[in-house]
Amino acid sequence: MKPFFLCLCTLLFSASLLQAQQEDSAMIRKIANEILVNGKAYSMLSTLTKTVGGRLSGSPQMVKAEKWGQQALEASGADRVYLQECMVPHWVRGGREEARLIGTGGKADEKLDILALGNSVGTGPAGITAPVILINSFEELEKRKQEVKGKIVFYNYRFNPRFIQTFRAYGDAVRYREFGASLAAKYGALAMMTSSMTESVDNNPHTGALDYMDSFPKIPAAALGLWDANKLAASLSGGHEIKMYLKTLAATLPDTTGHNVIGELTGSEFPDQYITVGGHLDSWDPAEGASDDGTGCVHSIEVLRALKAIGYKPKHTIRVVLFANEENGLRGGTKYGEQAKANHEKHLFGLESDAGGFTPRGFSISLPPEKLERIRQNWIPLLKEYGVYEFMQGGGGADVSPLNELLGTPVSELMPDSQRYFDLHHSRADVLENVNKRELELGAINMAALIYLVDKYGF
Amino acid sequence: MKPFFLCLCTLLFSASLLQAQQEDSAMIRKIANEILVNGKAYSMLSTLTKTVGGRLSGSPQMVKAEKWGQQALEASGADRVYLQECMVPHWVRGGREEARLIGTGGKADEKLDILALGNSVGTGPAGITAPVILINSFEELEKRKQEVKGKIVFYNYRFNPRFIQTFRAYGDAVRYREFGASLAAKYGALAMMTSSMTESVDNNPHTGALDYMDSFPKIPAAALGLWDANKLAASLSGGHEIKMYLKTLAATLPDTTGHNVIGELTGSEFPDQYITVGGHLDSWDPAEGASDDGTGCVHSIEVLRALKAIGYKPKHTIRVVLFANEENGLRGGTKYGEQAKANHEKHLFGLESDAGGFTPRGFSISLPPEKLERIRQNWIPLLKEYGVYEFMQGGGGADVSPLNELLGTPVSELMPDSQRYFDLHHSRADVLENVNKRELELGAINMAALIYLVDKYGF
Repeated sequence: MKPFFLCLCTLLFSASLLQAQQEDSAMIRKIANEILVNGKAYSMLSTLTKTVGGRLSGSPQMVKAEKWGQQALEASGADRVYLQECMVPHWVRGGREEARLIGTGGKADEKLDILALGNSVGTGPAGITAPVILINSFEELEKRKQEVKGKIVFYNYRFNPRFIQTFRAYGDAVRYREFGASLAAKYGALAMMTSSMTESVDNNPHTGALDYMDSFPKIPAAALGLWDANKLAASLSGGHEIKMYLKTLAATLPDTTGHNVIGELTGSEFPDQYITVGGHLDSWDPAEGASDDGTGCVHSIEVLRALKAIGYKPKHTIRVVLFANEENGLRGGTKYGEQAKANHEKHLFGLESDAGGFTPRGFSISLPPEKLERIRQNWIPLLKEYGVYEFMQGGGGADVSPLNELLGTPVSELMPDSQRYFDLHHSRADVLENVNKRELELGAINMAALIYLVDKYGF
Repeated sequence: MKPFFLCLCTLLFSASLLQAQQEDSAMIRKIANEILVNGKAYSMLSTLTKTVGGRLSGSPQMVKAEKWGQQALEASGADRVYLQECMVPHWVRGGREEARLIGTGGKADEKLDILALGNSVGTGPAGITAPVILINSFEELEKRKQEVKGKIVFYNYRFNPRFIQTFRAYGDAVRYREFGASLAAKYGALAMMTSSMTESVDNNPHTGALDYMDSFPKIPAAALGLWDANKLAASLSGGHEIKMYLKTLAATLPDTTGHNVIGELTGSEFPDQYITVGGHLDSWDPAEGASDDGTGCVHSIEVLRALKAIGYKPKHTIRVVLFANEENGLRGGTKYGEQAKANHEKHLFGLESDAGGFTPRGFSISLPPEKLERIRQNWIPLLKEYGVYEFMQGGGGADVSPLNELLGTPVSELMPDSQRYFDLHHSRADVLENVNKRELELGAINMAALIYLVDKYGF
């Protein structure tokens, strides 16, 4: 080819690239204006949190939440709304828990604020009374394993504040909540208490699932708020014997029926090719499950609502999935992935929001380096105005991970600012009042923009 | 020069650049760990908000706040702590304000929640009763100027939600708070009411300074929370005459003495060259002035404390300034700049924090484009881990602006995420409980890192 034609081709290519960028920028501005001016994410969250509330798998609120999800998807303009059945575990708290340090020498008992851990067994209604032993780490547990028998093991391993991303501090500490009971039971402990998985400045205990190992006895387990944990650790560090009375009434009932709630916007060109966007509908029981994961549910519904409202016709079918049972079983996410595989569905992308409704900063995404670099270069300039300035190599959330594992679908998760998440997570503070309307809306804007870009360009 | 030597020089230069980057990265990590592990910003803010509280210029709390500032700077290891006197205005709210819509046809009066605007005059203890006229914009005021006489003008101009940065929505709307009273008085209005400068989901009224124009009568002025503003606008849009009773007791007393509170870390090489870092000590009275601007004060003190704690010896003198009277006069910032000029001081840099203690995103900075681009390239890679990913062309905050205007000093302001700021700003919600400890600490980390880089490299 002659240089002149080469030049002309380059010019034409650049001009069409620029035009595409301008189109995309205008479309994302349109999405943003729709969500900022007419947005329903906050009012939907308000209904979910204030009329349904906490909605643990198997609870009556789970059923109410499924109805809410169907109605919200219908009202948002989904072409088709349906339920996908799956069996879910049915753990119940069973009643008000109690923990007291037994007073000695005429001193009154001292009450501690606790929450039993999800999946844990109860003490029975009489409760148990036993000496408490302070264990700061699993290494210390190994060293002092002879001292544990017949006692309540109190793990006091804290978030490492040096991690800037709080999810890393959580990832480091959560093994005490997950496995601490079984590892203590291995050496004859009667029960386990852990300081909560948080860096909050309040005393709220934070629950969450534990994972019993089959080889050891199942012992009761609960979390303490940080003020109480500090107090207990200080009392024990003097070397005095302190006895605790502990009563938890938790029990696991037979599995019951739950549902993924699904709404679709049918693709205009490839109706049988799917882009999934979702959050999980279940939540822990102490509060309203606002940030975990009400925000992910309304983010996802708002993506559909806004795209529909501005008249966008997706090429591929966009499927909003409100997943069942993320918290203590992942049955919904697993079912969704398995069913997609069994049906030989073609899935382009799975996007999840399960890190809160805080101001967005980026997305983690499972793409090979060269594709990741390309979307960084092309898409960050479009999203930066709305707060997203990075795509990090990584996975999606737990619920879209089976899509990736079973079908090889690229998956992604919205990464909002992480600083406030563990102040609320699984605690009484996870309420609507701790969600900011505009931060929530910015999350939905970036998710809708990403779905639009993937629908248009793929990866 | 021979190619070999050129190559060698490039290599040596690259190696020394890499080494400097590694040194800087390690130093900033040291600063971050100090602030995240041993940080005092949150506990200092707790003392300021809970033992001093709101601290308007001229109030007894202003004096308490100055003492708190001196003690906090001394405890943080400042080499020298002193006061810089300045006269400050002395506006007082004067007592509980009242607004009611007068009931007609046997209906009871309807109470509205208001706050008089700063610098406004009062109605007198008897209050005034007059019909209310709804005016949506200054354009509408001009069109309907004949109807305004003898009435209470109610401006209902709202934040434009399409702005992603809330400061832009504020900048657009705040002229109604600032000039609305005088422009209504021009056409004979008796008083002015404005919907609050916020997009909050609650009904808190937000105060803030107004600016009377000399040519028109001074009339009473107050702000309404958004629920009440919605209700009032809805009632008035029916075209019915509605009368309002309004009582505000505000008054401006003679100027009184206030102080900038200053703490220094003496420079090791250039003790008479200054880097200023500050926030303003005064706040509005309805709450605790936590985010406006307690956070800026403790950010600034924490910069000094952390640098001292890790043993950093600044080349230039670092001056922490807790400015007097930003809210309704800017007398402290003006005095500081004027005094610096009168003393022929050399100022390298002025950094301010007055946009809240939220998770940091960037700095605005007054540098020419080529210098701005250089610090973007060199410094963002060092700060990004801690949340700062942009340097925007712009100014510092109000208090460091005289340094820039009078001495030509480059000035800058920390730009935290802006979404929550105007939910709190000048309202009863501006309390410690709405500041997140770790977000606050991340602000201090980025400010300390920037001060370190400017001290080491200049611009």
